[in-house]
Amino acid sequence: MFARNQWYVACTPAEIDDKPLGRQVCGERIVFYRGAEGQAVGLEDWCPHRGAPLSLGRVVEGRLVCGYHGLEMGCDGKTVAMPGQRVRGFAPIRSFPIVERHGFVWLWPGDPAKADPAAVPDLKWAQDPAWAYGGGLFHIACDYRLMIDNLMDLTHETYVHATSIGQKEIDQAASSTRVDGDQVVTERFMNGVQAPPFWQMALRSHQLPTDQPVDRWQICRFSPPSHVMIEVGVALAGQGGYHAGADQKVSSIVVDFITPESDTSIWYFWGMARNFRPDDKALTAQIRDGQGKIFSEDLQVLVQQQRNLLQWPGRELLKLNIDAGGVQARKVIDRLIAAEQVAAPGLA
Amino acid sequence: MFARNQWYVACTPAEIDDKPLGRQVCGERIVFYRGAEGQAVGLEDWCPHRGAPLSLGRVVEGRLVCGYHGLEMGCDGKTVAMPGQRVRGFAPIRSFPIVERHGFVWLWPGDPAKADPAAVPDLKWAQDPAWAYGGGLFHIACDYRLMIDNLMDLTHETYVHATSIGQKEIDQAASSTRVDGDQVVTERFMNGVQAPPFWQMALRSHQLPTDQPVDRWQICRFSPPSHVMIEVGVALAGQGGYHAGADQKVSSIVVDFITPESDTSIWYFWGMARNFRPDDKALTAQIRDGQGKIFSEDLQVLVQQQRNLLQWPGRELLKLNIDAGGVQARKVIDRLIAAEQVAAPGLA
Amino acid sequence: MFARNQWYVACTPAEIDDKPLGRQVCGERIVFYRGAEGQAVGLEDWCPHRGAPLSLGRVVEGRLVCGYHGLEMGCDGKTVAMPGQRVRGFAPIRSFPIVERHGFVWLWPGDPAKADPAAVPDLKWAQDPAWAYGGGLFHIACDYRLMIDNLMDLTHETYVHATSIGQKEIDQAASSTRVDGDQVVTERFMNGVQAPPFWQMALRSHQLPTDQPVDRWQICRFSPPSHVMIEVGVALAGQGGYHAGADQKVSSIVVDFITPESDTSIWYFWGMARNFRPDDKALTAQIRDGQGKIFSEDLQVLVQQQRNLLQWPGRELLKLNIDAGGVQARKVIDRLIAAEQVAAPGLA
Repeated sequence: MFARNQWYVACTPAEIDDKPLGRQVCGERIVFYRGAEGQAVGLEDWCPHRGAPLSLGRVVEGRLVCGYHGLEMGCDGKTVAMPGQRVRGFAPIRSFPIVERHGFVWLWPGDPAKADPAAVPDLKWAQDPAWAYGGGLFHIACDYRLMIDNLMDLTHETYVHATSIGQKEIDQAASSTRVDGDQVVTERFMNGVQAPPFWQMALRSHQLPTDQPVDRWQICRFSPPSHVMIEVGVALAGQGGYHAGADQKVSSIVVDFITPESDTSIWYFWGMARNFRPDDKALTAQIRDGQGKIFSEDLQVLVQQQRNLLQWPGRELLKLNIDAGGVQARKVIDRLIAAEQVAAPGLA
Repeated sequence: MFARNQWYVACTPAEIDDKPLGRQVCGERIVFYRGAEGQAVGLEDWCPHRGAPLSLGRVVEGRLVCGYHGLEMGCDGKTVAMPGQRVRGFAPIRSFPIVERHGFVWLWPGDPAKADPAAVPDLKWAQDPAWAYGGGLFHIACDYRLMIDNLMDLTHETYVHATSIGQKEIDQAASSTRVDGDQVVTERFMNGVQAPPFWQMALRSHQLPTDQPVDRWQICRFSPPSHVMIEVGVALAGQGGYHAGADQKVSSIVVDFITPESDTSIWYFWGMARNFRPDDKALTAQIRDGQGKIFSEDLQVLVQQQRNLLQWPGRELLKLNIDAGGVQARKVIDRLIAAEQVAAPGLA
Repeated sequence: MFARNQWYVACTPAEIDDKPLGRQVCGERIVFYRGAEGQAVGLEDWCPHRGAPLSLGRVVEGRLVCGYHGLEMGCDGKTVAMPGQRVRGFAPIRSFPIVERHGFVWLWPGDPAKADPAAVPDLKWAQDPAWAYGGGLFHIACDYRLMIDNLMDLTHETYVHATSIGQKEIDQAASSTRVDGDQVVTERFMNGVQAPPFWQMALRSHQLPTDQPVDRWQICRFSPPSHVMIEVGVALAGQGGYHAGADQKVSSIVVDFITPESDTSIWYFWGMARNFRPDDKALTAQIRDGQGKIFSEDLQVLVQQQRNLLQWPGRELLKLNIDAGGVQARKVIDRLIAAEQVAAPGLA
């Protein structure tokens, strides 16, 4: 169950630069490629001739040419040509609203009439040269909501990421959760703690001392359908914490776009945006490698948790205070899905 | 759904020379081996004692000895002996009509009473020393009819086999299809074209020039249950094409026996028969390697097409003029299956 | 279908010495670990917080700490603590009766009230320093009863283990089977035969001649739920056979604990106990390697037999005299399962 009238991250621009990409998103098998003007396109991955996936073909002058018998598909899902054939009567295939923006290709799997490009999230860090971004993609066999839960309850860092970003104080500092319309914010502040290894590395790369206590913060922001942006950082203790001057702190935004592939699998686009040394590509690579290593520690837990939930389908999960972010996010999702079903029964 | 009262290629003779072969054909799990006179035998792959596959056993003096507890099975499916046991009352297992002919082992999965060895296809090239044959076997996860479609519409060569046998003129020359009883013939003639790489190789091996235009032909012949023989060749242009003298052309027969394993998988016996330099074993090997490489290019398309069809089970496929060969072949198959079901309801 | 009010071997002590072990036994997903006193513990592998498998966590001072968010689980299945939480109301998880004895960890998957530690089998060889034991563990995709059949009918040795312990005389010497309460004994005596390779090795290691005929015996003892102990040995011919003096024979006990994982897969704990040269660790290793090699020969037969049985679910198997041990063992199992279902309908 997914909200469908939403923009999901489907792929990165680089994934469709050289050849078509076949990827299932929200249960739909879709081929992504670039049309004649270089625009990103998303169509059903189905050749109307004999049903071969169009993603096995190639793009010639902006037309997607089927790799089986040469049918040429247009960006609107209508067949343009086929050797020796009149194609006017060929049944069209579904064309999905697509927007390329902020370094991602966004897909709208729902009603095209409702697809408003202005509704693509406004990612300030993606437009501002004072910021740099690096990230990656994982395919994980779990419900997308398990990953939202994961990111809205960072107490797991103490256990899953004990050697990098975890520290005992995360458990000890209570988090608070608030709901603001469709957004859910869970935040936690830890003052006068020692920076864990990942943040020591960040402090060093910022020429800040690592042997002094810091004030640390984590502000997790869920927004529909399944995005979680987390402001994280540390400041030298007593300098104002989150509000400390730029030369007293290291901060960044953990970026998480969680795109359902099916009910039990996701494409997880993760990354980090930072507003210091934005031109230092070596630092971008170093952070990405570190983050990739840390985030890969979540995979086994999520996959095995999903497996357990399927094995024991009837069992209740606890909803503790630390779970409030995920619980509230699920309520938002459920509300959006219910609203879609009222508007168009049978859609999902 | 397969026609059952038909001869299917089950294996090659070499596959059963040294030990029993367990293979599923038309949904039946069968053990193939050689009996006391060296004759090919096909039995249910089931030991009546405890259900172990007989194909794990060995052949001793023409008796198939179960590898678990030594039951000795006869070629008729009746237990011959078992250490310390009286076997007269043991339930027989099914013995399938088998014919070894033309370099293949043929299986009749249907009613044994109707199995006429004379109905095994008459392959002239297999009996004539002026011809040579080389081929191989692929296991492919697709409906056998998708492979028939593939072979009856060679416009796919332009796209799938662009670097070997494909050429734009295949698209441009219209094919014609005719039905003659249970046989379907689709043919295409391309005159005054340049020979594609595979045929240049063949011309060279025939001491014919490769820098001159050629007349090229493709004559696809479907016959039940799922055999497709394709006469292919090129002649120096203007010398009579298909009817040119033997010293002006290079031709061969592409041999395709498509044996269903299940509804969505096949054993694909492919090969090429040629009537030039039949004793040149190096040439046979060279052609087989080339053909194997070319035919392997079809695998991904067929497997992914099958996957798409299973994902979208209700969708119609187009039936264009280029698809006529496959469409007509399917009609023949459907008619044969329907006739079997009238004759023996519930058989398939 | 398993008898549940029974002790099953779940793992070896070494498997839980260093970290928790997640293993499915009798359809239950269980985490095994050592509590504060070093005692073996078995709990449902489910964290009551968010359903992650507890086996991904670690043991701290005898508490099992969930690897996701740090919930601390007690040996009784009740949550002991969780950072920042009151845990009194947390739903308990199931704790299974466990006994560590005779070099194995025993699990009682049924009604805990009926779990009597005194009912764990009394393995004399495991307690007596005059005996040594070595063994291993296989995971096999077959019904546990197929393995019982296998071990209660050793005529398969002639075919499956032809090069090690098999010999033609096994087929020729009739076995006899008797039932004694819940125990089933099948025995076979072969007098004046040549020792097969495995036993020649054993004779040599015992400084006994290998060029003389021997009397050989096999006494298979099934006991519920799925244990098979086989007394095997050879004595120099005419010295009393099974009852020959210790310096005239080589004997041992083949130990088989067959623990269902699911209806079609098992954990197979195999080994050999011997009462000669018990301190010779090199000999223990040598025998274990040899036995492992021999027992691995059964794997393919059992897996393929299971596959055949699933393919042909309705087919009857023969119940010959050689099958009497397995047939009687199944009757005991069926009787125990039926009795449990009368006592607690719906349990299994």
